[in-house]
Amino acid sequence: MLALRNALRPVAIQTTRRWAHNIPSFSHLNAVTEEDLAHFHKILAPTSILSTLPPNSTSTDDLASYNEDWMGKYHGQANTVLRPRTTQQVSEIVKWCAKRRIGIVPQGGNTGLVGGGISLQKEIVLSLGAMSNVRSFDPVSGILVADAGCVLESLSEYIAPHNHIMPLDLGAKGSCQIGGNISTNAGGLRLLRYGSLHGTVLGLEVVLPDGTILDQLSTLRKDNTGYDLKQLFIGGEGTLGIVTGVSILTPPAPQASNNVFLALPNFNNVLPLYQTVKRQLGEIMSAFEYIDRTAYDMGISHGLGPILDAGEVGDSQCFVLVETSGGNQTHDEEKLNGLLESLLSAEQPLINTGVLSQSPSQFASIWAFREGLTECCQKEGKPYKYDVSVPLADFQKVVDAIRERMISKGLYGDHAISKVMGYGHVGDGNLHMNVIAKHGYRPELEEALEPYIYEIVASHKGSVSAEHGIGSMKTHALHYSKSDVSIEWMRKIKQVFDPLNIMNPGKVLP
Amino acid sequence: MLALRNALRPVAIQTTRRWAHNIPSFSHLNAVTEEDLAHFHKILAPTSILSTLPPNSTSTDDLASYNEDWMGKYHGQANTVLRPRTTQQVSEIVKWCAKRRIGIVPQGGNTGLVGGGISLQKEIVLSLGAMSNVRSFDPVSGILVADAGCVLESLSEYIAPHNHIMPLDLGAKGSCQIGGNISTNAGGLRLLRYGSLHGTVLGLEVVLPDGTILDQLSTLRKDNTGYDLKQLFIGGEGTLGIVTGVSILTPPAPQASNNVFLALPNFNNVLPLYQTVKRQLGEIMSAFEYIDRTAYDMGISHGLGPILDAGEVGDSQCFVLVETSGGNQTHDEEKLNGLLESLLSAEQPLINTGVLSQSPSQFASIWAFREGLTECCQKEGKPYKYDVSVPLADFQKVVDAIRERMISKGLYGDHAISKVMGYGHVGDGNLHMNVIAKHGYRPELEEALEPYIYEIVASHKGSVSAEHGIGSMKTHALHYSKSDVSIEWMRKIKQVFDPLNIMNPGKVLP
Ligand SMILES: Cc1cc2nc3c(=O)[nH]c(=O)nc-3n(C[C@H](O)[C@H](O)[C@H](O)COP(=O)(O)OP(=O)(O)OC[C@H]3O[C@@H](n4cnc5c(N)ncnc54)[C@H](O)[C@@H]3O)c2cc1C
Ligand SMILES: Cc1cc2nc3c(=O)[nH]c(=O)nc-3n(C[C@H](O)[C@H](O)[C@H](O)COP(=O)(O)OP(=O)(O)OC[C@H]3O[C@@H](n4cnc5c(N)ncnc54)[C@H](O)[C@@H]3O)c2cc1C
Repeated sequence: MLALRNALRPVAIQTTRRWAHNIPSFSHLNAVTEEDLAHFHKILAPTSILSTLPPNSTSTDDLASYNEDWMGKYHGQANTVLRPRTTQQVSEIVKWCAKRRIGIVPQGGNTGLVGGGISLQKEIVLSLGAMSNVRSFDPVSGILVADAGCVLESLSEYIAPHNHIMPLDLGAKGSCQIGGNISTNAGGLRLLRYGSLHGTVLGLEVVLPDGTILDQLSTLRKDNTGYDLKQLFIGGEGTLGIVTGVSILTPPAPQASNNVFLALPNFNNVLPLYQTVKRQLGEIMSAFEYIDRTAYDMGISHGLGPILDAGEVGDSQCFVLVETSGGNQTHDEEKLNGLLESLLSAEQPLINTGVLSQSPSQFASIWAFREGLTECCQKEGKPYKYDVSVPLADFQKVVDAIRERMISKGLYGDHAISKVMGYGHVGDGNLHMNVIAKHGYRPELEEALEPYIYEIVASHKGSVSAEHGIGSMKTHALHYSKSDVSIEWMRKIKQVFDPLNIMNPGKVLP
Repeated sequence: MLALRNALRPVAIQTTRRWAHNIPSFSHLNAVTEEDLAHFHKILAPTSILSTLPPNSTSTDDLASYNEDWMGKYHGQANTVLRPRTTQQVSEIVKWCAKRRIGIVPQGGNTGLVGGGISLQKEIVLSLGAMSNVRSFDPVSGILVADAGCVLESLSEYIAPHNHIMPLDLGAKGSCQIGGNISTNAGGLRLLRYGSLHGTVLGLEVVLPDGTILDQLSTLRKDNTGYDLKQLFIGGEGTLGIVTGVSILTPPAPQASNNVFLALPNFNNVLPLYQTVKRQLGEIMSAFEYIDRTAYDMGISHGLGPILDAGEVGDSQCFVLVETSGGNQTHDEEKLNGLLESLLSAEQPLINTGVLSQSPSQFASIWAFREGLTECCQKEGKPYKYDVSVPLADFQKVVDAIRERMISKGLYGDHAISKVMGYGHVGDGNLHMNVIAKHGYRPELEEALEPYIYEIVASHKGSVSAEHGIGSMKTHALHYSKSDVSIEWMRKIKQVFDPLNIMNPGKVLP
């Protein structure tokens, strides 16, 4: 631990600690009135409106699924939820809200993990869920055009018969929407292979905060005609406009998919293993996921797996899941077998043991282990989730440092923080740190964790949000990853698009 | 030809023809004075300044390479060229120019094909050529950080010993700079495989039009902390700021590379061939390039190739180059041989003949044929170059329509337009149309071509610039590919970054 402490020393002497997480005041915004509701009834069908105000008088319970986030951490205040069916309706709603200074929170599948889709005060929720049609799909180019409210998994199913897959995949696929994915610039399990949405999204249709419809729904793979405005909405988290339509390049489905699950004696072997796998598998490597021992044991205790024989696992300190996706089963198996042979026959083996899936159901259950971890955390208690990028070599250091800190504060144990663990997309440098508050979120726990955790990440030149975004959770942590100049220019962009600050106010910018 | 005319009919009745290509007036800008030059001498070493003004009194000849573009089509007016060595120097130059209202044209390798890097009136040229250091390279992640002025080919050579390659490659690689590539969002020969720069560029350092240094030189693969501002400079063509540093993800070098050159009886076979190749080669297909017969014959007549036996070529109407890049030579060859066998043994073969490279030198000469076409056009006369995206099925239709038009206007032949041909990155839907003016550019030729050509492209829902950008050549054609709303929002973005309109004025926006 000595080396680690040394590595972290700069954090302790960091001087410019700025830390204040005030709920922003929205004095510039108005609450929805009965008059507004009457106007919304002119735009939308009655079934597209939920409101506690008369004449709707929806019960608060019926609004609950829009006002509470997936983690149960953020509790929204919206008294009105609108579910438009067309882009035109979205535009008319936004125009009215701009005129009346009503805040709008765009909401997709509500699976976001940073409180971005939850109303902070009296803003309405504009849910995209009723806009869920595929507009077109071209099986030659693989270009899919769809409403923003389409659920990711439905889109996968839609294009599967044409032998195409979505360029992204994540544990929340059954609920999250493509518009939400784009608005959070979601990464997920396939980023290593197919790259980020900044590359795969070809066009967007967006309703801007003044109600203008910006149609950049190009279906061209290449189009260099002027500034690529759509990029601002990718990861814009609904603060610059509402994404209503999406054009995205979908890759051909791989002809062959395989995965292996490996147990490693200790963390130091992960980096050399990554390099070996990358070299030997080359272009067919499509995922390289990391799971630490704490996360693995948690998975087992909640009935995931077991994938490996407990005896063989022994005291392995961490685990890696490698997936391949290629065009030829025989070739891919040859490459994988070659890799495993060389791993097992090495003089100083990098792995203790491992398993290669032999059937589609084994393939699925190996993935189910990795994907199931997020839900297991939820069952363990209330997880503080930190989704950070750090250099691969520092992954475990960061997790250990957090655990140490909780121990040193007397907050580690079943009375407070019961588990500190890390798993994630190692291939992308992206670590999901989960800190389980066994009996629920408590201010003193958060204070012990933040901003400490962000300072550590910053000291490793990492990102305080690798893929989940800023939302309302990390506005005050943005400066750990972005310079004052960058933040100032983000503000200017926000000001151009949303001078009235009605679009998802209080999110992203501090 | 009847079917084609029908397909094009909507063009003829298009009503909103807007066409005026005025040289913009830069009355808001000042010419460089001796006082300015004296100030530049305070910032830069004497060798970093070229100016026709005293005390430098550089000859116009010595400025020629900065004032004339690669095609010899655009002739610049700059009397001063500055070649800073550091980002700080760039910032100080820009601050002075902002204060003194002097226009700035950022210039990279000056290989752009739309007149974007040429001074239109009295703007200075700010050449990045002296900023050419690699800042860092991490062989594990493949992340390269470099000065914007690094020549693309030098970067390739720098990372080659680490078994990495640049994610883009183009015929101009020996001269174009990475900063120029990013500013034009260059596509090139590897886009099909590695995606666009919007996905592979991880960070940028940019000097904004007020001299502020925006440092977003992230070396993280994933970082979702706020708006992705750097995206605006990718394809910004120097109108929003000067790119001084670049962080980019470089892929591992493929272990095996192969290519084949195929002759097809006619254009109708290209689309089915593309689908067959894509299905059989899968993830190892890294390029699919198209060459029409006119372009092929031109290549042969200028001493490229020959790659195929003239007898076997017969009356083949077009040609396709397919490249594979994979991790295992044996596997890749098996896949390629399987493809060729199935192509040749088909009942109704899609190809007439073809050749598979058998050595690195054959591999290189097949590529040399494709890459050499751009220079051959230059030797044929003065090429009007149109770099458009259209649906693959419409590629040849567009080329034929242009030829027909020139014939119908009596402008086809050695007295005027000697050749109309198409080649390009078919896999990306990107066609390079070259219209050769045998005795040089002439207004009546341009009038016969434009806006007709853009109208055709628009009628196919294509892009008037797939990869070369807008520059000064296509500002007045932008509306064929972008709506008025889009253009209005581009203007707003320009206004935020460059309210004084000093940064590459007259480019991109009409
Ligand atoms: C089990 C689980 C696993 C996950 N795994 C991953 C993962 O691997 N990688 C990853 O990146 N993320 C992951 N996430 C979080 C991820 O951000 C979301 O799952 C997803 O991208 C959000 O989509 P959504 O439709 O649920 O958006 P929401 O949660 O509804 O909204 C998210 C944000 O986007 C905005 N927004 C939503 N729709 C629109 C729209 N149409 N226009 C404008 N703004 C909009 C909202 O205002 C909000 O700020 C996971 C979440 C869960 C619960
Ligand atoms: C033989 C040949 C083959 C080509 N093949 C392709 C191809 O396959 N694909 C393709 O996309 N293009 C191709 N091109 C054109 C292509 O745009 C350029 O080759 C290249 O990307 C431009 O780089 P450059 O450094 O020469 O930029 P320049 O020509 O110097 O400048 C181009 C534009 O970028 C701006 N700019 C340059 N550097 C900076 C900077 N540091 N900061 C801000 N703005 C800057 C300039 O102001 C100008 O607007 C080809 C050109 C040639 C001559």
